[in-house]
Amino acid sequence: MGRILIGIDLGGTNIKGAALRADGRVVRRAKIPTENERGGAPAVLKRMSELAIRIADEAGAGKRDVLAIGVGAPGPLNSRTGVIVETPNLKWKNVHVAREMRRMTGLPVFLENDAIAAAYGEYWKGAGRGAGCMFILTLGTGVGGGIILNGEPLKGIDDTASHLGHIPVELEGRLCSCGSVGCLEAYASATGIVARTLDRLAAGGHPDSPLRQIPSDRLTAADVSAAAKAGCPLARSVIEETGAILGVAIAGLANALNPEICVIGGGVSAMGRMLFGPIRRTVRARALRIPARRIRIVPAALGDDMGCVGAAGLALLRLRKGGD
Amino acid sequence: MGRILIGIDLGGTNIKGAALRADGRVVRRAKIPTENERGGAPAVLKRMSELAIRIADEAGAGKRDVLAIGVGAPGPLNSRTGVIVETPNLKWKNVHVAREMRRMTGLPVFLENDAIAAAYGEYWKGAGRGAGCMFILTLGTGVGGGIILNGEPLKGIDDTASHLGHIPVELEGRLCSCGSVGCLEAYASATGIVARTLDRLAAGGHPDSPLRQIPSDRLTAADVSAAAKAGCPLARSVIEETGAILGVAIAGLANALNPEICVIGGGVSAMGRMLFGPIRRTVRARALRIPARRIRIVPAALGDDMGCVGAAGLALLRLRKGGD
Repeated sequence: MGRILIGIDLGGTNIKGAALRADGRVVRRAKIPTENERGGAPAVLKRMSELAIRIADEAGAGKRDVLAIGVGAPGPLNSRTGVIVETPNLKWKNVHVAREMRRMTGLPVFLENDAIAAAYGEYWKGAGRGAGCMFILTLGTGVGGGIILNGEPLKGIDDTASHLGHIPVELEGRLCSCGSVGCLEAYASATGIVARTLDRLAAGGHPDSPLRQIPSDRLTAADVSAAAKAGCPLARSVIEETGAILGVAIAGLANALNPEICVIGGGVSAMGRMLFGPIRRTVRARALRIPARRIRIVPAALGDDMGCVGAAGLALLRLRKGGD
Repeated sequence: MGRILIGIDLGGTNIKGAALRADGRVVRRAKIPTENERGGAPAVLKRMSELAIRIADEAGAGKRDVLAIGVGAPGPLNSRTGVIVETPNLKWKNVHVAREMRRMTGLPVFLENDAIAAAYGEYWKGAGRGAGCMFILTLGTGVGGGIILNGEPLKGIDDTASHLGHIPVELEGRLCSCGSVGCLEAYASATGIVARTLDRLAAGGHPDSPLRQIPSDRLTAADVSAAAKAGCPLARSVIEETGAILGVAIAGLANALNPEICVIGGGVSAMGRMLFGPIRRTVRARALRIPARRIRIVPAALGDDMGCVGAAGLALLRLRKGGD
């Protein structure tokens, strides 16, 4: 067994971990509950450190075989100092992730924004491999984003670039989780999809829709996807509209960045042609001719591994650049 | 007299030229009519070459003192090969600008997109000096854009990045010159400002507006600006709305790029606080907290020199990187 990297993906519900060879191949994975309510940040950092060591061990690697641990976490955070400034969902403030995990593991630890890590994962080993310029949109509870330019993530001056879920698609419009209105996320996230579906249901019609059987406070984007797949016209039209709205935002990014690849990840991206058809048609109609012709819009390839692979890959990138 | 650079800014009406020291100081400028109708591309290339040599001469520099000629031109173009692929306004197709001007002048010639050149001019010697990440929006007949990242223009895979005028601000919306709808340019360009003003006039009210004295087919954005300055409530509200719409687009770019500086150039940008107030308020309300706090939104500093200074600066950058 040669030298390995550990990638950790810190989420509100689960902590995912993976051991990778330096060429990016995942050789071992594990998942544990985050349980932030049990002990808060110090306990979660300990859980992540132990998970990292355990996966390395299961991969047959001793500590000296581990090149580095990369951690992807929600932000805002400072990737240079390795500090999570605050996370609304975990309610952490100024947590020294890299320093503490380095102390607990004795290994180099690099912290990165989870959306940036996901983007880098797809660039390094997934659907965006080798692209000079690519970006990702991850459709989950929110809409995550990440831009990779010339092999490096675009982080901006304060590590808060690439928030592509908060690109406006309307001058006014739906209220977004960020407090603004009209953001892409307010429409194309799972939350936005549910809200738009409820609006349609409230507007009447479609008496036979299976979605009418689900209590409105329990409707999920997965329900809408399932109903669309089963042929429900209301659900289909919500998914198609989601594609068209994504297409408008992607057209703007195509005109601004002239990228080779746009990767769509997250649960809803599994809708296939029903979602990707309207996305591609809208981008062709709305973007300038040359960037519209260039951009390939493709589903993410790494699935659940995305965050861990990206965090590990960014750790390797920073090691090679002499970071830490 | 030390060594100098020549910057040329090719427009539909005029060709501007400037001689600069290598530190960016403009020491001589000149302007001649483009007169594309007299001889088309070959004649215009000859005029640009002669202008370059004449300005160098007037600056007291012999040919051997000229480091390079930088040409900013409308596109799409290929900055690497120096070929204008096509220009809708001049009706050129596949014109080898760099090669032909090099032949005519015996000097290194570098071609760049005019909006990118303007952005680089403000980065190199204007309001964006020293910014790690900045972008410009130039409000003219259209809305030009340019992004400068780590001292280099963002050109994209096909030299068509940075078309920030064609970022959508509405899912549907006003028809844009590019054929799409809802682009920033359809609202905030001179054309968009006139169209929105005419809509307001047609909607009635404001019987005393001085704009009612101007035939609708002759109304200009400058008229709207002048009326706003003179206190016309209708004109003021159009300018303020222009600011708010620009603010929405800038909020999206702040969230995507987390830049230090946004430079606003072009005629309407001279409106001062009446325009910049709503821009800044909207960005604070719509962008995420950290990028909103970071971004400074400022008027362009170089005025008419912007394009020439930027084209010359990019020529110097490419010379230093061993281009051509």
